[in-house]
Amino acid sequence: MSTLNKQFKLTARPVGNAKRSDFEYLETTIPTATDGEVLVKTLYISLDPAMRGWMNEGKSYIKPVALGEVMRAGTLGEVIASHTPKFKVGQHVVGNWGVQGYAVIGAGNGIDTLYAVDAKLAPLPKYMSLLGMPGMTGYFGLLDVGLPKAGETVVVSGAAGAVGQVVGQVAKIKGCRVVGIAGGRDKCDFVVNELGFDACVDYKSGDLRASLKEAAPKGVDVYFDNVGGDILDVVLGQIRMKARIVICGAISQYNNTTPVKGPANYLSLLVNRARMEGIVVFDWAPRYGEAMREMGGWLATGKLKGREDIVEGIETFPETLNKLFTGENFGKLLIKA
Amino acid sequence: MSTLNKQFKLTARPVGNAKRSDFEYLETTIPTATDGEVLVKTLYISLDPAMRGWMNEGKSYIKPVALGEVMRAGTLGEVIASHTPKFKVGQHVVGNWGVQGYAVIGAGNGIDTLYAVDAKLAPLPKYMSLLGMPGMTGYFGLLDVGLPKAGETVVVSGAAGAVGQVVGQVAKIKGCRVVGIAGGRDKCDFVVNELGFDACVDYKSGDLRASLKEAAPKGVDVYFDNVGGDILDVVLGQIRMKARIVICGAISQYNNTTPVKGPANYLSLLVNRARMEGIVVFDWAPRYGEAMREMGGWLATGKLKGREDIVEGIETFPETLNKLFTGENFGKLLIKA
Repeated sequence: MSTLNKQFKLTARPVGNAKRSDFEYLETTIPTATDGEVLVKTLYISLDPAMRGWMNEGKSYIKPVALGEVMRAGTLGEVIASHTPKFKVGQHVVGNWGVQGYAVIGAGNGIDTLYAVDAKLAPLPKYMSLLGMPGMTGYFGLLDVGLPKAGETVVVSGAAGAVGQVVGQVAKIKGCRVVGIAGGRDKCDFVVNELGFDACVDYKSGDLRASLKEAAPKGVDVYFDNVGGDILDVVLGQIRMKARIVICGAISQYNNTTPVKGPANYLSLLVNRARMEGIVVFDWAPRYGEAMREMGGWLATGKLKGREDIVEGIETFPETLNKLFTGENFGKLLIKA
Repeated sequence: MSTLNKQFKLTARPVGNAKRSDFEYLETTIPTATDGEVLVKTLYISLDPAMRGWMNEGKSYIKPVALGEVMRAGTLGEVIASHTPKFKVGQHVVGNWGVQGYAVIGAGNGIDTLYAVDAKLAPLPKYMSLLGMPGMTGYFGLLDVGLPKAGETVVVSGAAGAVGQVVGQVAKIKGCRVVGIAGGRDKCDFVVNELGFDACVDYKSGDLRASLKEAAPKGVDVYFDNVGGDILDVVLGQIRMKARIVICGAISQYNNTTPVKGPANYLSLLVNRARMEGIVVFDWAPRYGEAMREMGGWLATGKLKGREDIVEGIETFPETLNKLFTGENFGKLLIKA
């Protein structure tokens, strides 16, 4: 066991990509838990596109990370000391204690949102992907807002990403034709051959408009958008009547130093009496259990698969995070502490 | 009675504003009705922003006006000859026979969509405004898609326009706080003092962002958008959680020779779990009667008012149409034939 607590604190508001110089890297002594608290040792840190937004000042769906604060992140770890009957030493727990190797968690900083997971039911990284926030996002966003019906065409961007994998597979389970949009042949092959999507369009090669038309010849009923930008516009140009567009994210725009590119084709919503709606996964928190049970079942029977991209070492954090924005990651991106 | 039929035929696809040179103006002989047909004399022609879109080639919610065809428009007239039991000479009828002084209407060109109206129940121009397409658009778009609840804040752009007048007054009847956005002090005064809106922001003077914040201090629950462009972006920046944005039109963009300006603030939909949805009034055709009855009642009891801007002479058509896009019209724009 390392005798030091590796931490990244946010020290500057990034302009464009987050850089190593926007953080302070510290190695401090491991803190001590007292009454009502647990000490957890980090095993995995979740890296998500939303983290870039949390670094910005200003109103959003969650308050920004304060300067000087440990960078916020979803985490999975092991309880190594406990002074509360809620958790036992040796238990695995999921929480949000951020980019650090150890944390003391009590009443003031999230013990209420900490929950135990069982390594015997699923490999631990699955609790940060299919059975974690990305899984919840894809499951509820698709089913509750996308409202896919059997036989409809569902398109998802960031198809090989943590959320995209779930969206596509759940849509297949619901009887839809599923078309992924991803960057590069490898990712496209993966979602078709491994995850069972019907088709996948590589936005990095050829004419996206023409390729999408070929892959979704009847047009798009549901579009689950993780990327924004030009891809959103191309899909808007190919929606069907009464289409539903789920705005989950816009990874192409998060590092902009210029204004966000709004969808020039938004009047396609009018022509097609279509709807565009934004989602934030936290709204379904009271129903996470329902999704965990259903997706856990699909995982156990092999109906639902997933791929994680696991990088070793907390000290790699700034560079590893940026893999999300360059598209270098392949699957749900995690740091193994 | 004029012995000639004044007509405007579309002869070119306009670039930017529609110009007189995009049309051919004809004075032809008045046609003759035969079996199953009626001859109508035009009394009023409805001028609507959507007409600009109908002049463009390409897929939309309705097929474009063909080159060489009489320009499509909503119309109200008097039956002056009838060879069908469906209509009697002297009856007033509403239809879509376009920018011309007379038309013969039969099975092939719209007799099924012609309907009689009663000049004793409401002044004829009301059948092209409150009780016509603009009224139906405002009524169903607001109530069925905007879903306003008493106490919520409803904002409508183009507030003094044909649709905006209805949206604001219906929202008031439903117990909402109503804020208009209009161009110029006169229009703002009108919607507040005559129509009973709670406030109105003049987008041509001062800082729209600051003025809207003052007029809608709790934020915007429902936004009914007739204009698009920068105004849509400003409102998106001030929506509340679970806001509904009704996309009815985008008059600021219809004469663009550059690409449409997409709403750069669309990620506000995500932050606020809000929805943006497009509408086309024809979808409610089976329910027009329901709205006519309810709005007719409000009109009769003075709960619903409206203002028309009536210009004399079919021959003024191209210039009169452009008043919509410069904002020179004040109220529902009609030509009196």
